[in-house]
Amino acid sequence: MPEMTGTRPVKIALIQMGARARKEDSLRTAEAYLRRASEAGAEIAMLPEMFNCPYQASIFPVYAEEEGGPCWRRMSKAAAESHLYLIAGSMPERDEKGNIFNTSFVFDPDGKQIARHRKVHLFDIDVKGGQYFRESDTLTAGNETTVFDTALGRFGVMICYDIRFPELARRMELQGAEMIFVPASFNMTTGPAHWELSFRARALDNQVFMAGCSQARQETGYISYGNSMITSPWGEVTARMDEKEGLLIADIDLMQVKRVREELPFLKQRRTDVYGGGCAPEGSE
Amino acid sequence: MPEMTGTRPVKIALIQMGARARKEDSLRTAEAYLRRASEAGAEIAMLPEMFNCPYQASIFPVYAEEEGGPCWRRMSKAAAESHLYLIAGSMPERDEKGNIFNTSFVFDPDGKQIARHRKVHLFDIDVKGGQYFRESDTLTAGNETTVFDTALGRFGVMICYDIRFPELARRMELQGAEMIFVPASFNMTTGPAHWELSFRARALDNQVFMAGCSQARQETGYISYGNSMITSPWGEVTARMDEKEGLLIADIDLMQVKRVREELPFLKQRRTDVYGGGCAPEGSE
Repeated sequence: MPEMTGTRPVKIALIQMGARARKEDSLRTAEAYLRRASEAGAEIAMLPEMFNCPYQASIFPVYAEEEGGPCWRRMSKAAAESHLYLIAGSMPERDEKGNIFNTSFVFDPDGKQIARHRKVHLFDIDVKGGQYFRESDTLTAGNETTVFDTALGRFGVMICYDIRFPELARRMELQGAEMIFVPASFNMTTGPAHWELSFRARALDNQVFMAGCSQARQETGYISYGNSMITSPWGEVTARMDEKEGLLIADIDLMQVKRVREELPFLKQRRTDVYGGGCAPEGSE
Repeated sequence: MPEMTGTRPVKIALIQMGARARKEDSLRTAEAYLRRASEAGAEIAMLPEMFNCPYQASIFPVYAEEEGGPCWRRMSKAAAESHLYLIAGSMPERDEKGNIFNTSFVFDPDGKQIARHRKVHLFDIDVKGGQYFRESDTLTAGNETTVFDTALGRFGVMICYDIRFPELARRMELQGAEMIFVPASFNMTTGPAHWELSFRARALDNQVFMAGCSQARQETGYISYGNSMITSPWGEVTARMDEKEGLLIADIDLMQVKRVREELPFLKQRRTDVYGGGCAPEGSE
């Protein structure tokens, strides 16, 4: 892994907003929060999953745009104007074949796209007396693990349900990620039960920081759990929001990744001879 | 996976005891608890890691015995007399070449050995101002994932530090385990920080029951966290002890494994095309 980890804290902004019915209103809300994040000194900002589109499978095709389309350009411009790294939550993205993906675009402080993650695991759930949802009714799944380099460190990005799968976070750790960003929107069934647990577990097991940015809770439509949070390589919650719309600024000491890995060196103690090199990037083991 | 899961709850006994200085005293303590477990109707009982040996690397070779040796025979007999499945915690085991392992023997209600797990991940840790320990000073690591069939269901067994590695529990789930037994002894640094989190995370991520049986906390030597617990496929703590020596009897509804897997079908949604089939037993994918 490249030695890019700095010795000073990194300031991160989580923008827990709810998508508006009108796409333009969502974009303006996001842009306003990004200006505030920049004023607060944030170097990285993250928006929630589907920040510009109500979370409803039938609506995704209606709101979908191409990479480089109007929403993409607005976010690129906002990153440049605010001069920060932007994990632009996710939005419905249409490719040249007409497939729709749940996609997170990542921009650098010049507004240049440096990563694109298409949600790998689509959210299909049917809890008795609880949540029903089928993303796969309208979405196509991505096929790639997304890790990218910045001047602040090497990071990963996954989207919401992707966090359910320990293999994906493990693969990112094996690719050198020190922090994983997760635009998300857990619901009121799985949120209280599994949100914090999943963020703490992925952080602890991979000795990385995990940052989750959720949709704010709204009163109609898909009811999001909120509770955007950051968890540390020691498995602790270090920052947490409630369910309301708002901005969280948190300092992250990426050196903690190195310290925890020295104290508890289990990442070096994996027994790939017993359970396979699984999750490792090709050619790495 | 074979259809062996019953429709009635299974009664499980966790015997949270501390190892005595004299091996004979540890054995008698374990035997007494096993009689009590049997009287309470337990069908499965578990002892803690190194239940018959103070937890100190330099002592393991002194207390080590062969498979089939005196301690093994006492536990086989206790299982038969109590007529229950016995996950006999772990003990230092010497093989024919003189290697010492941290080994869990599993007996059926006739006293027949049906599984043997040698700890795969040895515990070497050095937390600044916290815990220091090096099992690898005297122990040799095992090389196998241990899953076994009973009349009650298919189960896995791992030992303490093995739980740190999501790959091992995932592999057991892929081999059909519905519950994983973990003789263990977390310490006062990692226990409060990671014990509950690890048991909840492995249970949730693999939609299995996890049962951990810890050494009781003693005042000298290695100070064990205690807190033996059972976690459910939904990621909840369903039974928990404090730090004191004692016996916990808990009912487990193994049908919950099936129910949770229907509601949240993520085990079927793994994207092995993206991150490899890793952790799967050979030939299964």
